[in-house]
Formats: sequence, C-alpha cells, structure tokens
Amino acid sequence: MGNVIWHNATVKRQHRNQQNGHNSAVLWFTGLSGSGKSTIAHAVEEQLYQHECRTFVLDGDNVRHGLSSDLGFSELDRKENIRRIGETAKRMMEAGILVLTAFISPYKKDREMVRNLLPLGDFIEIYCKATLETCEARDVKGLYKKARAGEIQNYTGINSPYEIPIKSEIEIDTDKLNLEEPCEIVIKILSERNIVNLK
Amino acid sequence: MGNVIWHNATVKRQHRNQQNGHNSAVLWFTGLSGSGKSTIAHAVEEQLYQHECRTFVLDGDNVRHGLSSDLGFSELDRKENIRRIGETAKRMMEAGILVLTAFISPYKKDREMVRNLLPLGDFIEIYCKATLETCEARDVKGLYKKARAGEIQNYTGINSPYEIPIKSEIEIDTDKLNLEEPCEIVIKILSERNIVNLK
Repeated sequence: MGNVIWHNATVKRQHRNQQNGHNSAVLWFTGLSGSGKSTIAHAVEEQLYQHECRTFVLDGDNVRHGLSSDLGFSELDRKENIRRIGETAKRMMEAGILVLTAFISPYKKDREMVRNLLPLGDFIEIYCKATLETCEARDVKGLYKKARAGEIQNYTGINSPYEIPIKSEIEIDTDKLNLEEPCEIVIKILSERNIVNLK
Repeated sequence: MGNVIWHNATVKRQHRNQQNGHNSAVLWFTGLSGSGKSTIAHAVEEQLYQHECRTFVLDGDNVRHGLSSDLGFSELDRKENIRRIGETAKRMMEAGILVLTAFISPYKKDREMVRNLLPLGDFIEIYCKATLETCEARDVKGLYKKARAGEIQNYTGINSPYEIPIKSEIEIDTDKLNLEEPCEIVIKILSERNIVNLK
C-alpha cells in the first residue's frame, strides 16, 4: 500500500443514527433481583423493534456467562463487572444501538462511573422499584430462598447492600404497575428526549 | 406486575438480520503492527456503510483505553484482552452488526478461542500479511523504533512472537496491494458467503 495515503475512514455515531432513523443511548435498568429489570427491558426492546429501532439487551444471561465469566459477586468484582458492561454499552451506543442493560448494579458509585463514561444525556437510569418482600415473594430463580438459607453469599438485599438511586431519570414502581405501563413510561421519555420518533 | 405472565420477549439475531437486510459476522483482522489491519477494516466499513450495512470497528483505540484499560501486553493479558474482545464482538454480532476487529492477536490459540466462541462460519479470519521489514519501515506510531531501543517490552515482532495463521479465510498481502484491492477481496467473500448482498 506504498503510495496510498493511510487514514482511518470513519463512520461515526451520527451517521449510524441517521441511517437508523433514531438516536442511540444507554437505558440502564437497576433494582433488586426480581424487580422486573430484565422483563421490562425486553418488553421495551420488543416495542422499539416493532418501530424499526436498533436495540440490544445486555443482562446477566449474556454477560455473566461471557464477558464477566471470570468475576464473582464481591464489591470489587461487581465494580469491574459494571465497568466492563459500561464500556461495552458505550461501544454499542457508538454503533447506533439503543442499549438496554439489566443488572442489579447495587452501588451508586458504580452507576455514576458508567454515567460519567458517556456523553451527557446518553445515560438514562431506570430504577425498578420493588420492596424486598415483593421480590422475595416472586423469587423467580429460587435464589432468595437459597440466600436466606445461607447457601449464597453476597446476595443483594439479603447479605449485600442495594443503594437506592436518588435521581434516576425514570422510576418505575413495579409493585403496582402492569407490564404495559412501564413500557409506555420508558418510550414516552425516549420520545420527549427526541431519541426516538415513533409514529 | 402481579398477574402479568413474566417472560423475556426476545428479539433475536435473525430478526435483526432481516431488519438490516444483511447477516452479521465477525471479521477478525490479524497481523503485525503496521500491517494495515485497522486501515483496511475502516475502509471496508466505509464501503459497507455506503451499502446501508450496519458495521462497527473494534480496535486498539476504542478497546485498549476502555474495556481492556486494566490489561498490559504479557501473554496472559493479551489472552484476556482477546477473550473480552471476542465476547464483545459476539454480542455485537447478535445485535445484527458486521463487526470488524483489528488487533495484532499474535497467538493462534487465542484466535481459535474466539473462533470457537462463535457459531460455525461466523468468524472470518483475515490475515494481513506484511514482512516485519515493511511494517518497521512504515512505523506509523514510532513504536518499532522504541521497541528496538528497548523502551517497549513485549512488542510483537521485536521481543514478542507473532504466530502466523495457517488457514485464514482471507489472506491479504499488504506489502503489494493497494487499499482498494483488499476491500474488494473482503467484500467479494462476504457476498459469496451470502452475508451481504450488494447491488
């Protein structure tokens, strides 16, 4: 390639957003296990897909067995897990995707780390609010029971803390709402912020 | 959300590929520093973008300062770096993106690890072949000079090995070719494999 001028041709985020007809962002769902993060994230994704949006859900299923398979649930490992998720979400956002992440992410400083990693306004924190009692009653995966029995260490809400978000962009009371309502709330805010323009 | 059936609605890779009008894959560029990996990857991306494809380039610029900022260049750290890139590329591929990665990735077993992480046929290894002399003469970043002076340890080709791929899907002799030709070669193979269908 002797005489060719070497350059990094660059397809940038703005080009991808134009191509897709919507902006990209990171929708960061946080809350206790069983608070509905992943369910709501997938339901929002499905609605956005119906409107031709480019989306992706990062959650425990595809991160804890993959990118973070070497990490446990100590405070340090949780921090590193969230850091990697934040970096991956950032790249996917640059690729034009509306990224929905569904992780307990119990520590305020870790969530703020990701917020600060992204351009202002691109991090939308969605707090899925549910009482421990509700989450424990749901116990979809049977893990609360095991944590209560002492079989699981560092289980958020039982023997590991959850720091409630103070100034989330969106707060969803999943004790009270049906699945349709949280979806409407999230998509309404995406519209108001001109991230998506759904007809 | 008491009575609503909880489910993970799933927008899958095949839906995204239909939406985008092309399949997704991982194009894994490997070769010495200065062999043209990043330049060719960005040039291929630009052409694919002109054809309305969804693409993203992962390279040192956006990974070594982000996802892998805690890693160095020892054999172990390189392995972990490639593992994380592989996992991230896999997720982006699931999101419907044609992912182009541009990393030296000097060890055969690390490249094979990523190949085995992906469904058969989705990993396309592209060996950017150039002699050390050529790469060192280019020395775009001035790093070969520093490595020769002993200022950089573990520099591939100087004091760290590069294991030449034996059975890459694509081999590009960047000593001899102009920038246009490697792009044509890569896009031709994407077409032949029905990953993209460019008019």
